[in-house]
Amino acid sequence: MTKSKSKSYVDFKYQVTVSFSESFLCESLFSQSAFVNRPALGILPPENFPDKLIESLLSIAPSGMTRVQTMACGSCSNENAFKTMFIWYRNKERGYANPSEQEVGTCMINQSPGCPDLSILSFMGAFHGRTLGCLATTHSKVIHKLDIPSFDWPIAPFPKLQYPLEEFVRENAQEEARCLEEVEDLIVKWRQKGKPVAGIVIEPIQAEGGDNHASPDFFIKLRNIARKHGCAFHVDEVQTGGGTTGKFWAHEHWGLDDPADVVSFSKKLLTGGYYHRDELQPDKPYRIFNTWMGDPSKNLFLSEVLNVIRRENLLEEVTRSGKALLQGLYALQTQYPHILSRARGQGTFCAIDACNDATRDSIMIKARNKGLFMGSCGEKTIRFRPTLVFKEYHVHQLLNILNDVLAEHK
Amino acid sequence: MTKSKSKSYVDFKYQVTVSFSESFLCESLFSQSAFVNRPALGILPPENFPDKLIESLLSIAPSGMTRVQTMACGSCSNENAFKTMFIWYRNKERGYANPSEQEVGTCMINQSPGCPDLSILSFMGAFHGRTLGCLATTHSKVIHKLDIPSFDWPIAPFPKLQYPLEEFVRENAQEEARCLEEVEDLIVKWRQKGKPVAGIVIEPIQAEGGDNHASPDFFIKLRNIARKHGCAFHVDEVQTGGGTTGKFWAHEHWGLDDPADVVSFSKKLLTGGYYHRDELQPDKPYRIFNTWMGDPSKNLFLSEVLNVIRRENLLEEVTRSGKALLQGLYALQTQYPHILSRARGQGTFCAIDACNDATRDSIMIKARNKGLFMGSCGEKTIRFRPTLVFKEYHVHQLLNILNDVLAEHK
Repeated sequence: MTKSKSKSYVDFKYQVTVSFSESFLCESLFSQSAFVNRPALGILPPENFPDKLIESLLSIAPSGMTRVQTMACGSCSNENAFKTMFIWYRNKERGYANPSEQEVGTCMINQSPGCPDLSILSFMGAFHGRTLGCLATTHSKVIHKLDIPSFDWPIAPFPKLQYPLEEFVRENAQEEARCLEEVEDLIVKWRQKGKPVAGIVIEPIQAEGGDNHASPDFFIKLRNIARKHGCAFHVDEVQTGGGTTGKFWAHEHWGLDDPADVVSFSKKLLTGGYYHRDELQPDKPYRIFNTWMGDPSKNLFLSEVLNVIRRENLLEEVTRSGKALLQGLYALQTQYPHILSRARGQGTFCAIDACNDATRDSIMIKARNKGLFMGSCGEKTIRFRPTLVFKEYHVHQLLNILNDVLAEHK
Repeated sequence: MTKSKSKSYVDFKYQVTVSFSESFLCESLFSQSAFVNRPALGILPPENFPDKLIESLLSIAPSGMTRVQTMACGSCSNENAFKTMFIWYRNKERGYANPSEQEVGTCMINQSPGCPDLSILSFMGAFHGRTLGCLATTHSKVIHKLDIPSFDWPIAPFPKLQYPLEEFVRENAQEEARCLEEVEDLIVKWRQKGKPVAGIVIEPIQAEGGDNHASPDFFIKLRNIARKHGCAFHVDEVQTGGGTTGKFWAHEHWGLDDPADVVSFSKKLLTGGYYHRDELQPDKPYRIFNTWMGDPSKNLFLSEVLNVIRRENLLEEVTRSGKALLQGLYALQTQYPHILSRARGQGTFCAIDACNDATRDSIMIKARNKGLFMGSCGEKTIRFRPTLVFKEYHVHQLLNILNDVLAEHK
């Protein structure tokens, strides 16, 4: 076994291609129990775990955030982020005093005030996961929601914008203003209902819901509305985080120093988890806890992935490929206006609509048979989610295949 | 690197000791992408994944269960098990017809009938996890519940038995009958409230809640009550599964061919997940789904753990050690009746109560300083959770240390 030999592993959809050298794996393997044990991270973390967090997750912490909590998957990340916001909100309401006897007594039997009637405001078309708390903020597809009990939490409209964004600035600003007004109305209404909004959760780009974008201005104003009403602001980067938008976090495109109170992640980060501001740290240990709280071996992989992203300037690569991809999609929708419309994207996180779902599905199958695997989202959207090593020549290959498929389309 | 060399890795609390040979790890490593990728198991499983499931999880499937769904952690396992029961229950109610337009429309906005007011019946003292759905069935400690919104679901009393069980058969049978009566009352009451009980969830031994046992007769009758009222019966073996009770699943002690509709697991199994009967298979794909749905590398570890359990007859070992441990605890509580009482256990899954929580904590700290690490649960309970390789001579070491600590106790 030569130490210099390396192998390349590719998981097309959910991971960048990384060359792990055998030496990295074998040395790590026998020097680290991470690969053969599943520690209970919250109580028995590996000795070097804080250092490993600094090398991996904390090296890419969003602006204003110094704390990170790992979790085993995206849903658990959002569930625990919601809990963090609820705990923070109630502690504010109580003036950081100890809970009352009544709270202590009622919480054990699921009743208010111990289990308070708090809510999380989400957006129509959102996807934040499928466990019961997350699912109450998910509004993308019937198959996700049907038959599962839910919470009476407020749901605001997400802006329905016209693309390309720069050609419809005035119309889109109006639509965004309408949605923001509705957000404030809902916050007031749910407070009056006795179910105050403890947090607002939103994706920087609604992914499952159909790759719906909004302007930085929309998010900046929403962040301010959250602050004004004392709600935590939770940016869910489970789909958008990790570099595909051309920045490591999609919210960096907003240009804020203080973009959020909580940022959750999973997928490309190889581990679930969430960052939060100091202020949201729970007041006592074990309030946010479970047996595994993630898996430290995945942090080691993430460190390697980050090394590759930095060494190979993959974010610049994504920005370059993304521009070429979006230009190509604009050209295709001009050429096939009866089939395609609404090309949009940030980095390589791109999408285009077909005229209906049957056409979308047919295009996808034909493209797959020619070697191009694309995803779907929303009602009739094709979404592009290439890995970070997707280069300009890959864009041309993609566009050629797509063009062939469209040319054949009746 | 010699292939025959082996290393031993121990994680005291959550895993059995296993000697992984370097050859196992290195060969698996380079033959299997499982160790360097995180596949989206639901859509892009490794080619050999079904075989690996047969070798690992399906080889230990509970009686009557041929299906298993892996998940990333214990909470996700229970959340998805609950969803499986809700989907099954509603399909029964609908007569397996397509959902109505009203259901399709209302589910997207969290409202009934699309998101129906169904409930899960749980027991006081139960612990089923900390995500919002699970937490509505957890009633063990304030710290788990406080400040988190919950569901109005029924909570039955769990029998408060006297130990040793065989000395209080009559009294315990009365207490169990009282609890079972309450279960039926609650099922009727919640149906009348318009929140029918879709499933009953229970631990074979309430662990976090204080190591509370019930008789096989109690569980057999409860299983029948579930059947009678059309509720699914979910046995949560997250803490009890994996062999520490002397059988691989604690519910095997009940002696039923058809012990449950759903059995969930995590911890010692190294991966989360749940088994279920054929009848509970969701009617459509993607109804139970997330990106990772577990981690196939953990199944490989489980296969090795199972090999060791079989080769070294560890379940017999646990039964033997467990008997010695429980006898020793009986002797200690006879010798120190002002300090200890209520020794109880199955296999090495044992516990004993201290006279109060301060004494419990003091005993635990003194024992730890002498090299004996014990856990706590309930209000004043010491719990024993040794690994599967805990042998009789370990029992004597444990009892000697505990005896020394108690002799010194004022």
